[in-house]
Amino acid sequence: MANDKKLVEEITSMEEDFTQWYTDVVKKAELMDYSAVKGCMIFKPNGYAIWENIQRQLDARFKELDVENVYLPMFIPESLLQKEKDHVEGFAPEVAWVTHGGEEELQERIAVRPTSETLFCDLYSNIIHSYRDLPKLYNQWCSVVRWEKTTRPFLRSSEFLWQEGHTAHATEEDAENFTIKMLNTYASFCEEVLAIPMIKGKKTDKEKFAGAKSTYTIEALMHDGKALQSGTSHNFGDGFAEAFGIQYTDKENKLQYVHQTSWGVSTRLIGAIIMVHGDDSGLVLPPKVAPVQVMVIPIQQNKDGVMDSANDILNTLKAAGLRSRLDDGDKSPGWKFAEAEMRGIPLRVEIGPKDMEKGQCVLVRRDTREKTVVAIPDVAVEAEKLLDAIQKDMLERARTFLNTHISDATTYDEFKDAVENKPGFIRAMWCGDRACEEKIKEDTVATSRCMPFEQEAIAENCVCCGKKAKHLVYWGKAY
Amino acid sequence: MANDKKLVEEITSMEEDFTQWYTDVVKKAELMDYSAVKGCMIFKPNGYAIWENIQRQLDARFKELDVENVYLPMFIPESLLQKEKDHVEGFAPEVAWVTHGGEEELQERIAVRPTSETLFCDLYSNIIHSYRDLPKLYNQWCSVVRWEKTTRPFLRSSEFLWQEGHTAHATEEDAENFTIKMLNTYASFCEEVLAIPMIKGKKTDKEKFAGAKSTYTIEALMHDGKALQSGTSHNFGDGFAEAFGIQYTDKENKLQYVHQTSWGVSTRLIGAIIMVHGDDSGLVLPPKVAPVQVMVIPIQQNKDGVMDSANDILNTLKAAGLRSRLDDGDKSPGWKFAEAEMRGIPLRVEIGPKDMEKGQCVLVRRDTREKTVVAIPDVAVEAEKLLDAIQKDMLERARTFLNTHISDATTYDEFKDAVENKPGFIRAMWCGDRACEEKIKEDTVATSRCMPFEQEAIAENCVCCGKKAKHLVYWGKAY
Repeated sequence: MANDKKLVEEITSMEEDFTQWYTDVVKKAELMDYSAVKGCMIFKPNGYAIWENIQRQLDARFKELDVENVYLPMFIPESLLQKEKDHVEGFAPEVAWVTHGGEEELQERIAVRPTSETLFCDLYSNIIHSYRDLPKLYNQWCSVVRWEKTTRPFLRSSEFLWQEGHTAHATEEDAENFTIKMLNTYASFCEEVLAIPMIKGKKTDKEKFAGAKSTYTIEALMHDGKALQSGTSHNFGDGFAEAFGIQYTDKENKLQYVHQTSWGVSTRLIGAIIMVHGDDSGLVLPPKVAPVQVMVIPIQQNKDGVMDSANDILNTLKAAGLRSRLDDGDKSPGWKFAEAEMRGIPLRVEIGPKDMEKGQCVLVRRDTREKTVVAIPDVAVEAEKLLDAIQKDMLERARTFLNTHISDATTYDEFKDAVENKPGFIRAMWCGDRACEEKIKEDTVATSRCMPFEQEAIAENCVCCGKKAKHLVYWGKAY
Repeated sequence: MANDKKLVEEITSMEEDFTQWYTDVVKKAELMDYSAVKGCMIFKPNGYAIWENIQRQLDARFKELDVENVYLPMFIPESLLQKEKDHVEGFAPEVAWVTHGGEEELQERIAVRPTSETLFCDLYSNIIHSYRDLPKLYNQWCSVVRWEKTTRPFLRSSEFLWQEGHTAHATEEDAENFTIKMLNTYASFCEEVLAIPMIKGKKTDKEKFAGAKSTYTIEALMHDGKALQSGTSHNFGDGFAEAFGIQYTDKENKLQYVHQTSWGVSTRLIGAIIMVHGDDSGLVLPPKVAPVQVMVIPIQQNKDGVMDSANDILNTLKAAGLRSRLDDGDKSPGWKFAEAEMRGIPLRVEIGPKDMEKGQCVLVRRDTREKTVVAIPDVAVEAEKLLDAIQKDMLERARTFLNTHISDATTYDEFKDAVENKPGFIRAMWCGDRACEEKIKEDTVATSRCMPFEQEAIAENCVCCGKKAKHLVYWGKAY
């Protein structure tokens, strides 16, 4: 018991220090480790397996939309990166530069990709000629590098894993539609797979992507009341096409510029999972992305037949397609319970001599700790039902949390009070001037998260300057 | 017809110029494209999808062996790369160096990983403490960079995709066994999935990996008679462990060094597939890695009902789990046949008005061009049978080619004659001296490929110097 307690005590409680709780969880659940290069992290098996599950299920959704995967080089010549002015200004300050290949100094510096718009544009300028070549719907899974000063596991690191989709379309309308389609794909993926409800909307000009005409975002609410930008989808219009000369001949034989989009989500989503669902015992993983969905833990495993029963249960679960493991280590059951909880495994099965006598085992939910006694032959069916319930309940709880952490502010005093005292999103009207956005950020640290698709006028005037308001905006402190 | 002919004419014939044939095929089958950075290539959808299929099936085999995936940073500080002397000497000449992060010059140069032994060692030195922590069986899928002077698509490029497995074991024996187990995993994967038979054996000291105690290799034979090293598995002994201080406490509470292995295959395997199976009409893909296994091509598609039938057939094939597409473009059937052949699609289904009248369609194999007329309701079952047959026959043909392109040489004259006139592997005895290996390479361009596991004495003396022979070696010209 001393041991069991120690394991749990090693995590700081959320209430006490959320930042420390987060760091404790990612370390103790063995999701990541720090590396020899400042700001770069190591994805350990428990962490990487979550990413693999995200990748597999999101990639399947991309493929249903006829998106094709490609792989472009990690290197971008400086001259290519500079072709679109806003874009290079946005990224140059955080680029890692390669200057030497082997013993030779390169004639031109090469950037390690911070994002690949310029490479995709270069490719598209070579392979798009006619309207028949459109649309081009390419995506790549890769890592990108942004030399960050302050880093935090999964949320901000100098190298991170992501996917970046890049598409080219014949018309402005096609590009806009596809931008929104991908945003919606992300939002439904996050709801259905990660059990995280999202606020969807458009970024203000100040917050949009370097080189984009418009940027759309999905924003999630963390347990500490801060927002996390969880995915973005950009409509580039024909700005990049003009800079890179990406033209096609239309049906009337006229030369036209293509209209482009790009969209991405990253390993940041793992940070969202941790901060939306976790608790003081550690990680709580939605069954659909949990690397291990069910952990079988034997009680008094040295007693006759216990390990045989545990193994039978394991095999039954596996045969039903559930990702299952058996913890046969030489630790106490209590220690194993605590470890399985720390790792966020959605369901555990306890089986001991007393259960065996009754032909039963005990299923314990990670999210509610609710126990269900089931007959051994029913274990797989019941486990599947419970995993479905966990997935559904986790989304419902996160949705309730989100809905109860949105407050409206119609005056600046209300706004400032909300930032101070009401963790969560603040809905308030905005005149559209960047000056107000900047003043709000300076006065309160809150930033505009997005202008939601469903616009309504909760007041007449801008919450900051009092002039006529143009947009309803979600504001919040953010990661 | 003019069009059809043109498509095929664009490929140089193999006999005429194998190198040009290869380049033509990778371009015309749209597997890759060149990029803005010298020596780096773009994986286009047709090429990347082959890699995805390789990855998925190989990864499943790794997971069956309890290998866990991780992701380590792409950057290695220079001081870390230098910790193992032989290793840094082997790789330093081809490392890309990052010297600046954003606007700041870095205090220490950082290598873009050419391979990740040093990072895994650094990690293992932090997380391995006790015999209970062993073995550690980690793998990562990533890209690596080696600044190459001369490059060729898939075979040698400055950046390439691969997997690198890195393991740590308690004993020398465990490490050696695992090294061989992974080599065998590669060999059976190549046979069963890529339909490529491999010669397996040990590298000579001259050819082994920088820092390894021993390197094992699988070598395939290309259609032009040259060898392609297709995968390697290294036993490091405890050399890296000593350099990095990776120690564990054994059951007797004594401190021991771990024994390590590493093993990798890369997108080079795509080059092997092209050069083992391709022909003068383009690519021929083994069904198990073909992104599209069956292409449905309508004949006289404007005639009533043809497109409906073609779509029905497509849906039947898809429902049976076959990766299938319908080519409904506005090109002629002949052009579509040629394009499907160019892309190596294992099977095509032809369906036109005459077939429909008879309730049938025609299946055409890519590898033999053999036609099979089948009743439409049987199309999926018959397609599956044919795909199995294609997979099997492709392996058999490749095996026959390999077996008929191995010649024995017992004298140096025979050896030189074989290099000149008998494309393929040459089996010859070797004394074990590096001087002979170097002389043979200088005289003939042939290099030692491997010392096969099945050793026999085909002669008494070294084929080069005439001294007492120690090893039977496979020699050959190689990529």
